Amino acid sequence: MPLLPEQIPHKMLSQDAYSTWLGIEILECEIGRCKVGMTIRKDMLNSMNKAHGGISYSLADTAFGFAANTHGKYAVSIETSINHIEALDEGDYIVAESVIENVKNKLGFNIIEVKRGEELVALFKGVVYRTSKSWEEND
Amino acid sequence: MPLLPEQIPHKMLSQDAYSTWLGIEILECEIGRCKVGMTIRKDMLNSMNKAHGGISYSLADTAFGFAANTHGKYAVSIETSINHIEALDEGDYIVAESVIENVKNKLGFNIIEVKRGEELVALFKGVVYRTSKSWEEND
Amino acid sequence: MPLLPEQIPHKMLSQDAYSTWLGIEILECEIGRCKVGMTIRKDMLNSMNKAHGGISYSLADTAFGFAANTHGKYAVSIETSINHIEALDEGDYIVAESVIENVKNKLGFNIIEVKRGEELVALFKGVVYRTSKSWEEND
Amino acid sequence: MPLLPEQIPHKMLSQDAYSTWLGIEILECEIGRCKVGMTIRKDMLNSMNKAHGGISYSLADTAFGFAANTHGKYAVSIETSINHIEALDEGDYIVAESVIENVKNKLGFNIIEVKRGEELVALFKGVVYRTSKSWEEND
Repeated sequence: MPLLPEQIPHKMLSQDAYSTWLGIEILECEIGRCKVGMTIRKDMLNSMNKAHGGISYSLADTAFGFAANTHGKYAVSIETSINHIEALDEGDYIVAESVIENVKNKLGFNIIEVKRGEELVALFKGVVYRTSKSWEEND
Repeated sequence: MPLLPEQIPHKMLSQDAYSTWLGIEILECEIGRCKVGMTIRKDMLNSMNKAHGGISYSLADTAFGFAANTHGKYAVSIETSINHIEALDEGDYIVAESVIENVKNKLGFNIIEVKRGEELVALFKGVVYRTSKSWEEND
Repeated sequence: MPLLPEQIPHKMLSQDAYSTWLGIEILECEIGRCKVGMTIRKDMLNSMNKAHGGISYSLADTAFGFAANTHGKYAVSIETSINHIEALDEGDYIVAESVIENVKNKLGFNIIEVKRGEELVALFKGVVYRTSKSWEEND
Repeated sequence: MPLLPEQIPHKMLSQDAYSTWLGIEILECEIGRCKVGMTIRKDMLNSMNKAHGGISYSLADTAFGFAANTHGKYAVSIETSINHIEALDEGDYIVAESVIENVKNKLGFNIIEVKRGEELVALFKGVVYRTSKSWEEND
């Protein structure tokens, strides 16, 4: 049986070892939108003692992948870009949310904001390729 | 005393907890160029049992940061983008290398190729902002 | 005398030969935001009889430049990216508007939506470098 | 009859009103690669008396589109990004060339360098969606 839109990100997270390592939690999700959060840990820092760029990217990429898959089809990321606006410290809690979304037949487009409280810390844009395979209960 | 170009990435890696978690090793480095490699582990996979997009991004971002800092100034990433060309599996060894580089006064520009053997698996483009702070031996 | 935020895009357009060739008009502007529109002409089409990608890019880039300069400093584009979502035909009227904006000391970040009526046809993300030179009446 | 790879960009240019307005000429082309050039004119300048960002973008986008179509299928641009490295003046002759290319079943990936003489002035990255329609002599 096909999964409901809001069930898909939860199923995805339960099978996603890396997002689990990051400590990502789903805060909200509905069709076309997903909001996820995590805390920056010491093992996520770079040589300048700030969160590695790969960390905020990964949170945004997970929000993006979750949002793009709520439409029911397996959607895989083709192209993504991120502006790093503010450096992040150990202990910061950051939230990523898809704020603009557009879906065509084979492609999907999203803008993801990453925030620390009310402050915008990164801006992410992504494109997915939508396959014909559906998310089913027994995947 | 200022560090030599090829010393800077080694110093950076020794202080970079996340790149250490990723298992990144420096294969080659010289001024303006750095080549790094790592193996995809089980805890780096996503819900589709492939490497999370954040993993190949992070390797490329580390290669980018290392290359951009070999010029001696602290350089911080502003904008990066990545094309995900091939999905990656547990056990794959991937290498990221800066293949095009351009440095201006305050900005630096790089293209990074991510390969699995001879196969191009991702293409990354990045811009750094170059601060006036130098890498010194006792940083 | 420094110009007011909403005067800057009008001054810029009056000095911008290419935006004038495109037929760009300023629909709204205020500090941090600018909305511009234009009609696709026959001499803007590509080999597939659709608007060349450079046309929607150029409109978005103008909206971006205008918005980023309303803060009073000369701001120059460093990095921009665009998703082409819908093909555009001769006669289409398209509007570009900065919908997300963030300004730091030396950098500015914007998301620009390009629409045909209510339909999103392109998504643009850009970063500017903000110089120390101000827009003055007698520039 | 299908066109030969090197014939396709010439056919595309002959039907491309905007690239013709830009004064683009094809310097070299072969399968997977195309090199095009043009001169910056007065009507291509922005409010700062430099080439509008849309001009170097458009040249790169044409080089990209031409290279991506040499494989024989209609290929349409999905996502593109450009770093503006050097400002360009009236009279400058600029050349854009696809220097890295990768083709998958439905997608193609390219890096385009834009140069003024030997100097790198912009870096462009693009993704195309490859349709199933072929370029034929009587298109």
